[in-house]
Amino acid sequence: METLTFFDYSLIYNSFSFTFATMMAATLFFWLNLGSVAVAYRPALVITGLVTFIAAYHYLQIMLSFGDAYTVSNGVVTATGNTFNVAYRYVDWLLTVPLLLIELILVMNLTRSDTVRKATTLGFAAALMIILGYPGEVAADMDTRLLWWVLSMIPFLYIVFTLFVGLKSSIASQPESARGLITLACWVVIISWSFYPIVYLMPNFGVESAFLAVEIGYSIADIIAKAGFGVLIYMIARRKSEAEGYVA
Amino acid sequence: METLTFFDYSLIYNSFSFTFATMMAATLFFWLNLGSVAVAYRPALVITGLVTFIAAYHYLQIMLSFGDAYTVSNGVVTATGNTFNVAYRYVDWLLTVPLLLIELILVMNLTRSDTVRKATTLGFAAALMIILGYPGEVAADMDTRLLWWVLSMIPFLYIVFTLFVGLKSSIASQPESARGLITLACWVVIISWSFYPIVYLMPNFGVESAFLAVEIGYSIADIIAKAGFGVLIYMIARRKSEAEGYVA
Repeated sequence: METLTFFDYSLIYNSFSFTFATMMAATLFFWLNLGSVAVAYRPALVITGLVTFIAAYHYLQIMLSFGDAYTVSNGVVTATGNTFNVAYRYVDWLLTVPLLLIELILVMNLTRSDTVRKATTLGFAAALMIILGYPGEVAADMDTRLLWWVLSMIPFLYIVFTLFVGLKSSIASQPESARGLITLACWVVIISWSFYPIVYLMPNFGVESAFLAVEIGYSIADIIAKAGFGVLIYMIARRKSEAEGYVA
Repeated sequence: METLTFFDYSLIYNSFSFTFATMMAATLFFWLNLGSVAVAYRPALVITGLVTFIAAYHYLQIMLSFGDAYTVSNGVVTATGNTFNVAYRYVDWLLTVPLLLIELILVMNLTRSDTVRKATTLGFAAALMIILGYPGEVAADMDTRLLWWVLSMIPFLYIVFTLFVGLKSSIASQPESARGLITLACWVVIISWSFYPIVYLMPNFGVESAFLAVEIGYSIADIIAKAGFGVLIYMIARRKSEAEGYVA
């Protein structure tokens, strides 16, 4: 395990706790607000809450696993020898990343066949992206790490392309009051997701205290991509409900 | 760690347990009463419950961390060497203090642009206040502690000014039956929040058993500022719902 100062240990541990609390609060916010959007948008809001709920569970596990990997005694941090389980992040992403794209498709309220087709292809590409990233994350060798990064970027670029080109006509068909927010949501996906491949490559760049940077970086990216993105989905659902004359 | 008598240890531990139970009960009270206020006030009540929910989580963690930092055997309290994590309070405040101001703005039911503008500026000032307080809280040096206290007071005074001057016309536009309660809510924010900078300075004043005073003081202030303030928000939402002819 990494050697950590007390400051670094505290910063990482507390950022896991912060992320858990944020994800749990976001989940309850989405679900308690189900009644404030029209019925057509409730599946999108249910899934939005599932994403943050699954993330909350994994951050709790990550925090506990991190706590098990070290003991802190009188301000000195010592590795216990227990392994810090990095796989929790990948298990989380494997579940949540396809769901994130599905919530975006669902809030657009397209035709049934269009919804199924877009949700399936984007969801499948997202899962593939995560699966291809994992072997590199656990590889000690930097060339292997880079190889899987490149492979994982192929479905990532396909998703970016779909969000910008494939969804153009679908976005144009949205009510005017929601169109700006949906375009913003696409941008949030692309910008916040771009963060992950950069964080992933930090050990390749030989960044000092890469462990700290990776853990804090992924936590911030997760909060923006899941809770922040979810608030956008909620706002889109509200605007569209209002545009359609829904009164809660 | 501090040397504690059995009496002090019990008082602190049980006040954490009391605060956890109060926050959890308050959360359930707010959410179970969602149906008793008009739709326009439910977002305020959802957020009120989120604040006490997030606080409940952090008091549980504070209680567990405090329990880990000491062993009690035959009435003798011994420090285990495990660190008592003081950062939980700051992580909590970083999330809850902006939300507290947002719930006050939401219950006023202003225009959308006014709500967004006031919620953003007050929320940002509140987060800045917490961030500036933290470096002083963990500093061993008393001058450093005082310096960050002064910096943190700048956004605090801005918030006080906004609540008293900036919201004057918004409060005047509220139905008469709720106006008194909203003014009271502003006072509760200012008085209960004033408690924190006083507690913060206790080590600077060289108060005997400052550790005890700080932990108990913060717990009482949190109960008033979150659960107590939340009950006021609930009462305001009820009065306004009734004034608008809402029948639950």
